[in-house]
Amino acid sequence: MNKSILKELQRILGKNSLLTSWEDRACSSYDATGQSFLPDAVALPETTAQIAAILRLANEHRFPVIPRGAGSGATGGALPVAGGLVISFARMNRILEIDAANMIAVAEPGVITGELQAAVRKHGLMYPPDPASLKFCSLGGNAAECAGGPSAVKYGVTRDYIIGLEAVLPTGEIIKTGVRTEKGVVGYDLTRLLVGSEGTLAVFTKLILRLLPLPEAKSTFLLTFASLAEATKLVAEILAAGLLPCTLEFMDKTAIAAVRSRLSSPPPEDVAALLLVEFDGTADEVARQAGRFAAFVRQKGNCALRQAADEQETAELWQARRSISPAVLSLRPHKIAEDVVVPRTKIPELVAFLELLAAELNLLILSFGHAGDGNMHVNIMLDKSKAEEARRGLEAKERLFRFVLSLGGTLSGEHGIGITKSAFLPLEIDPPTLCLMRRLKQVFDPNGILNPEKIFP
Amino acid sequence: MNKSILKELQRILGKNSLLTSWEDRACSSYDATGQSFLPDAVALPETTAQIAAILRLANEHRFPVIPRGAGSGATGGALPVAGGLVISFARMNRILEIDAANMIAVAEPGVITGELQAAVRKHGLMYPPDPASLKFCSLGGNAAECAGGPSAVKYGVTRDYIIGLEAVLPTGEIIKTGVRTEKGVVGYDLTRLLVGSEGTLAVFTKLILRLLPLPEAKSTFLLTFASLAEATKLVAEILAAGLLPCTLEFMDKTAIAAVRSRLSSPPPEDVAALLLVEFDGTADEVARQAGRFAAFVRQKGNCALRQAADEQETAELWQARRSISPAVLSLRPHKIAEDVVVPRTKIPELVAFLELLAAELNLLILSFGHAGDGNMHVNIMLDKSKAEEARRGLEAKERLFRFVLSLGGTLSGEHGIGITKSAFLPLEIDPPTLCLMRRLKQVFDPNGILNPEKIFP
Repeated sequence: MNKSILKELQRILGKNSLLTSWEDRACSSYDATGQSFLPDAVALPETTAQIAAILRLANEHRFPVIPRGAGSGATGGALPVAGGLVISFARMNRILEIDAANMIAVAEPGVITGELQAAVRKHGLMYPPDPASLKFCSLGGNAAECAGGPSAVKYGVTRDYIIGLEAVLPTGEIIKTGVRTEKGVVGYDLTRLLVGSEGTLAVFTKLILRLLPLPEAKSTFLLTFASLAEATKLVAEILAAGLLPCTLEFMDKTAIAAVRSRLSSPPPEDVAALLLVEFDGTADEVARQAGRFAAFVRQKGNCALRQAADEQETAELWQARRSISPAVLSLRPHKIAEDVVVPRTKIPELVAFLELLAAELNLLILSFGHAGDGNMHVNIMLDKSKAEEARRGLEAKERLFRFVLSLGGTLSGEHGIGITKSAFLPLEIDPPTLCLMRRLKQVFDPNGILNPEKIFP
Repeated sequence: MNKSILKELQRILGKNSLLTSWEDRACSSYDATGQSFLPDAVALPETTAQIAAILRLANEHRFPVIPRGAGSGATGGALPVAGGLVISFARMNRILEIDAANMIAVAEPGVITGELQAAVRKHGLMYPPDPASLKFCSLGGNAAECAGGPSAVKYGVTRDYIIGLEAVLPTGEIIKTGVRTEKGVVGYDLTRLLVGSEGTLAVFTKLILRLLPLPEAKSTFLLTFASLAEATKLVAEILAAGLLPCTLEFMDKTAIAAVRSRLSSPPPEDVAALLLVEFDGTADEVARQAGRFAAFVRQKGNCALRQAADEQETAELWQARRSISPAVLSLRPHKIAEDVVVPRTKIPELVAFLELLAAELNLLILSFGHAGDGNMHVNIMLDKSKAEEARRGLEAKERLFRFVLSLGGTLSGEHGIGITKSAFLPLEIDPPTLCLMRRLKQVFDPNGILNPEKIFP
C-alpha cells in the first residue's frame, strides 16, 4: 500500500480513523490462534458508505482487505496473512433498533455479543448464541464464523438468528439480503450463504437478528463420572429420552484439572469426566424437567448427580467452563485446538480413539465442549519448541480429522476453517463441490482482495 | 428436442422411463397455480448417475430441464414454461435411512412429506415441516421452495431441517453439501443456498434431514371473534407473553364460510375471525401450557374460547384448515393466491388494508394462514373470464405487495417467487442484490437450461 493509497484512505475515513503506527497495527495482527501477521494499516470506519469506498479503492488497486471483529477467532479468520488493510468495527458498534414486540434487533457488526444479550434482556428477550468469548467477541465475527456455544444444543447457532444483512461486496456494491420477518423465501438465500463465509465474500455492515422470549428460570446440574465412556454414552441417551437441556457440556479429566483451581467445590480428583446440564423455561417447566432429568439420571446414569446450590455456584461452574480454552495453556505452552463434530452416538468412539492416540503419540490430548450436539473441542497440547513433539501434534491433528470423517462427522462445528484447517478441507469436501465454492468466491470477489488465503487450500 | 436427443435419453434411462405420449406429458404440465405448459418429454430416473447424464446432455444440446416433485407448488416452480424435459421423482421415492439415535433421516426427493413423517413417527421422532399439501407433496419440492406450514411458528421451516444434500449441477457434476451432524461450518453453506432456490440452481438427488423427538401430547383450542381486529391483535400478544404454540392459525369470515360445510360443529355465522391454537410437548407440559393459555385468553382476549373436545374434533378442524385453499374456489372460479409475510404486530394493519382494498376494488378478498409468524395467505377471488374483474385482481395484487413491503414485510413466506411473482421481485430486492443473484445463477447454470424463466423478471 503506497502513499497515494494511504492518502486516499485518509480522505475516505476522515481524521483519526486510519491507523498506521506499529503499535496500532500490532493490535490488529493477532487472534486466538496465537499467530500474528502485521497489516499495513487499520481503518476505523463509521459508515457503510466509507466501507464501500474502501472496497472500491482496494478492488482498483488490488490490496487485501481483512474485516476484523474482536480478534477472538480460533482459526485465523481475521488475520491479515497477506498484509493489507484491516477494517476494524470498533466504531460501528451501535445497537440500531430493538423491536421488542416483533422480537427483532438490528445491530452493527462491532456490537459485543454479550452487550446485545444484556440489552435485549431488559426487554424480556434473549439472543441465544453464546460462544465462550461472548464478553468480548463481536456479532460481526460471530456471523462470519457462524459461532455456536453451549446453548446450541437447544437453540441452534448464529445462522439460526440472523435473518437479514446489509453487506458490501468486494467490488464496492452495497447489498441487502433477507427479511425482518419470521419467514421469507424471496430470491436466493444470500443471508445464509454469507453467514459462515468467514469474511471472504462480503463485509457485513448491519445485522438483522431474531430474538426469543427470555426464559424465566434455569436449573443447573453437575454430573461426575468415574468412567469417561459412561459420561459420553449418557449424552445421546439424555436427548433420545426427549429431555431437551439448553446446556449439555462435557469435560474430560484433563480439562477439569485445568480449571480445578477456579472452583470452590471442585469434583474429586478421581473423576474421569463431568457433564454440565441445564434446563431453562418457565419456573414450572424447569422444575418439572429437572425432576424428570434427575429421575432419568438416577435410573440410567452411572454417576454422581448434584444440583447447583445457588446462582453463585452456577456462575462459578460457567466461569470454569468458559475459561478452559485459555486455562489449558497452564498444562503445556502450546495447543492445537480443534472443534470437530460427530453424530452424538459416536462420541464414545471419538473419546476412546483420543485416549489411544494420546498414548500412541505420547501427547497430552484433552476434550471438552458441546457434547449435546456432538461438537467436541479437542485440544492437542504441546511444546512447539520441541520439533519432534510439534510433528507428532500435527500427526495427531490429521489422524483426528480422518477419524472424525470416518464417523460421519465434520471438521468444524463453530470455528470455521480459516487458515488452520484449509489444508484439510479436501478431506471433507469433494473436488466438484470445492470447485463450485471457488467459483462462488470468484463471483463475489473477482480480484481476490477480501480476506485472501482463507478457507481454500 | 429432436429424435436423436430422445434416443439418447432413452439410452440413459432404459426401458419405460421416458414418457412422450400426450397424456403422460399433460400429467406433468400443471401445478397448483392452475396454469399448464406441456413439456416435450418426461423422464423417470432412478439414480443420481442418470440425472447427471441427462443434465450433461441437456447442457450440451441446450434443452430446458424442469425438476418436478408432486406438482403442488403455488407459484409455478415446476411448470415447463419453455417446454423441454421434466424430471419426475416418482421413482426416486425411497427413505434410505432413519438413524433414530442421532435423529437423522436420509431420503430421496420423491418421498411424500407425510410418508416420511409417518415413518419417523414409528421411531418416536418428528419431521416438523407440514405444508397443507403434506399428504401428496414431496420432500424435494418442499426443499426447492423452502416450504413451511402451521408448525413453523414453533419449529421453523424446511431450511431448518435440511442439513445436507446430494445434488446435480446443470453442467452435470454431482455435489455433496452440508453434514449429517447437528452443527457444521466447513466451506460455504451451499445447502442453505440451494434450499429455496426453486429448482433453478441444482437438481436435488438426496436429502439429509434433521428430526426431533415426537411430542407425546397435543392440545387444541378454537378462538372465535366478533371482530377481525381483535383476532389479529391477540396474535402478537400471545407470543409476547412467552406462550409458544405449535400452531397459531388464522381464518377470516370468508375463509370460515368456505369450509363451514366440512365442520360438524361450525362456529356461529356472525363470527368475524377465528384462531386455531395448539400446544405440544409432554402431557404435563401441554396441560400446563394449555392452562396458562386459557387464563391468558380469558384475561386478554375479546373472544369465545373452546378446547377441542377430542381427537375427532381436532382432526376435523385440521381437515377444514387444510382444505381452505381448494375450497375457496366454490366462492369464485379463480383466485390470485399470495403468501405475504409482515412483522407480527403489523397483521392488524394488513387485514384492515385488505378490507378497504376489497371494498374499493369491488373484489372478494379473504385471508387465512400462519398468523403466528406473520405469514398470511391472501386470496383475491375472481372470475378471469371477466376482463375488467381480472384487471382489478391484478391491481389488488400489486397494491397488496406494495403495502406489505411498506410494513417491513416480504412477498413470500413459503411459496417462493416462481413465475407468478417474478415481475414484482424488483419491488423487494434492490438492483445490486438482484444482479448478484443473477450472477450466482450464471455460475451454476451458464447455459440457462435448468428451470428457465423462474424467479427472475
